[in-house]
Amino acid sequence: MSSSSPPLTRPSVLAAHELIKPYIHLTPVLTNTTLSQLASTPLPASPSNLSPSHPIIRFHFKCENLQRIGAFKARGAFHALERLKSSPTFSPSAGVCTHSSGNHAQALALAAKTAGIPAHIVMPSISSPAKLAATKGYGARIIPSGSTSSEREAVVAEVIKETGATLIPPYDHPDIILGQGTAGLELQEQVAPTKLDAIITPCGGGGLLSGTALSCEGTGIKVFGAEPEFEGADDARRAYYSETGERIPSVKTLTIADGLRTPVGMIPWSIIYERRLVAGMYAVTEDQIKAALRLVYERMKIVVEPSAVVGLAVALFNEEFRSMIERESGEKGWDIGVIFTGGNVSLEVLGKLFAE
Amino acid sequence: MSSSSPPLTRPSVLAAHELIKPYIHLTPVLTNTTLSQLASTPLPASPSNLSPSHPIIRFHFKCENLQRIGAFKARGAFHALERLKSSPTFSPSAGVCTHSSGNHAQALALAAKTAGIPAHIVMPSISSPAKLAATKGYGARIIPSGSTSSEREAVVAEVIKETGATLIPPYDHPDIILGQGTAGLELQEQVAPTKLDAIITPCGGGGLLSGTALSCEGTGIKVFGAEPEFEGADDARRAYYSETGERIPSVKTLTIADGLRTPVGMIPWSIIYERRLVAGMYAVTEDQIKAALRLVYERMKIVVEPSAVVGLAVALFNEEFRSMIERESGEKGWDIGVIFTGGNVSLEVLGKLFAE
Repeated sequence: MSSSSPPLTRPSVLAAHELIKPYIHLTPVLTNTTLSQLASTPLPASPSNLSPSHPIIRFHFKCENLQRIGAFKARGAFHALERLKSSPTFSPSAGVCTHSSGNHAQALALAAKTAGIPAHIVMPSISSPAKLAATKGYGARIIPSGSTSSEREAVVAEVIKETGATLIPPYDHPDIILGQGTAGLELQEQVAPTKLDAIITPCGGGGLLSGTALSCEGTGIKVFGAEPEFEGADDARRAYYSETGERIPSVKTLTIADGLRTPVGMIPWSIIYERRLVAGMYAVTEDQIKAALRLVYERMKIVVEPSAVVGLAVALFNEEFRSMIERESGEKGWDIGVIFTGGNVSLEVLGKLFAE
Repeated sequence: MSSSSPPLTRPSVLAAHELIKPYIHLTPVLTNTTLSQLASTPLPASPSNLSPSHPIIRFHFKCENLQRIGAFKARGAFHALERLKSSPTFSPSAGVCTHSSGNHAQALALAAKTAGIPAHIVMPSISSPAKLAATKGYGARIIPSGSTSSEREAVVAEVIKETGATLIPPYDHPDIILGQGTAGLELQEQVAPTKLDAIITPCGGGGLLSGTALSCEGTGIKVFGAEPEFEGADDARRAYYSETGERIPSVKTLTIADGLRTPVGMIPWSIIYERRLVAGMYAVTEDQIKAALRLVYERMKIVVEPSAVVGLAVALFNEEFRSMIERESGEKGWDIGVIFTGGNVSLEVLGKLFAE
């Protein structure tokens, strides 16, 4: 499949954008004085940090929680489908297939429905009824599986053998990466004439982060990745700063940022690390994610899922990131684009997070 | 005070808008295909209603949850302050005063701070720490009181005697009503060239509902009011359809729509009922409010407080309202403006609402 994909470059992200524009929302870019002021206030001093840094930060929030299906994943799925439709070897009646219990499942189901082709989605039988219903709601066929990745992959292989469907993986695919990168592209265009100094995005499988990095190549905009540190979810950060730079292929974490529990994929990693298109990786604690989540609900009045605010949490609370900004930008400060990746959180989960 | 206020007419709402434009946000008007489709689907048949109506509804949501201080109340407060500043008898150094535990307190505190004058806010000592902190955060002086209205009014009288501050009540005041009406005015302008058939707003003290009615006078747009029915919170609806049309001056309810626990005020009532500028009043249950709240969070991804969605709940679930629309509009359907009044809900309260 990859061999027929466009090269992983900024012009390919521009081309992807032209392809998917009819199908996706141009989501708004919001600013927020309170949050920018808060980020531009030094953290409280502590015994381990007697003089916290004092960066100047102006936020520009790209609201992919307002994207179709409630997450940026619609971009990659529509792009993969559009590209597939023009492939001579693709059999539309056989449809597409993936395994996902999250936003990619809904995104692919919607894109397939729009293209009028079948979608076979392998979902663990323990998935929440809400997620199953949402994916079914887009007309997909749901095939239940066990919840380990080998169980899921075995069912996918079976489905493909039976149906001849084409596999569309959630992130480790050039067309997906180029599609996700259109979020970074739009963000750059929407803040003009302001020129961004940096963009920070969460990193799970790395599709969005690597796509965004491609969208910024040659623009001078620095791109950073953000991860939860809980139970080793910061696999990309650890690999990025390791001696060998070797990708960590498996992670087992129950971070509240449930969209970021996967290890970074091979193709994303080649962009993030090997091509050095990402300037740094940073991690935050569960409490910092919750605090950022609370600020977005209370101050911005928009619904985001925990995974969505991990980049904001880094900018607000990660002293390493903040001192780097102060060092690099001085009194001029930075205009930082922050991608809010999605808003698909169950109200029950939200309730439990904040009920205590 | 009232004698020096402009007449309660549409041109006065236009003039109010010019005065407050520099201070308020032009909040967005959102549409939502899923919610409009849902409203355009008949309710399930029941033994008491074998053939539910089938209205066609296109929603236009005016998002005052994204207004400054998180609620439409900023409009009335800024308007009252602007008008006061030009009054020859007003003493700026004495400042302004009100009693409120809700959005009006924060709105007046912000408007006073912006004008550089003191604000004395009487708040029940049992108010939540979050609300006290928010109001203090805008630089207001907080004076604690008991929680009954007579206790609160006694403290207000004392504060006025001591300080010479001018009382700015939350809704029963022409300048407040004209200020709130600017939300309805903007909504009409923002949907153009679409012409609204109706606007529905929640009704607590009635400032927003009556102001919106003024903003629609002579336009042909019908205005409707929405209330919770829990423990008699639908005082305005009951009075509206009573034989005497007499305002019900007191209400005691703990509806989750906590911004709508007050009885409708005298001046609002004269506009709503006596001048017949509101075409109908409708009520919904607590469960219907919760269901509407859930839909807004899940489908629109924005944070609203329970009071904000009472108008939406009427359009979705009140069969009387829905059959009236079908009768009046037939197959053409209605474009309905729905004002989302605010987004100031504590995450703990939200958590409790949805945790079960």
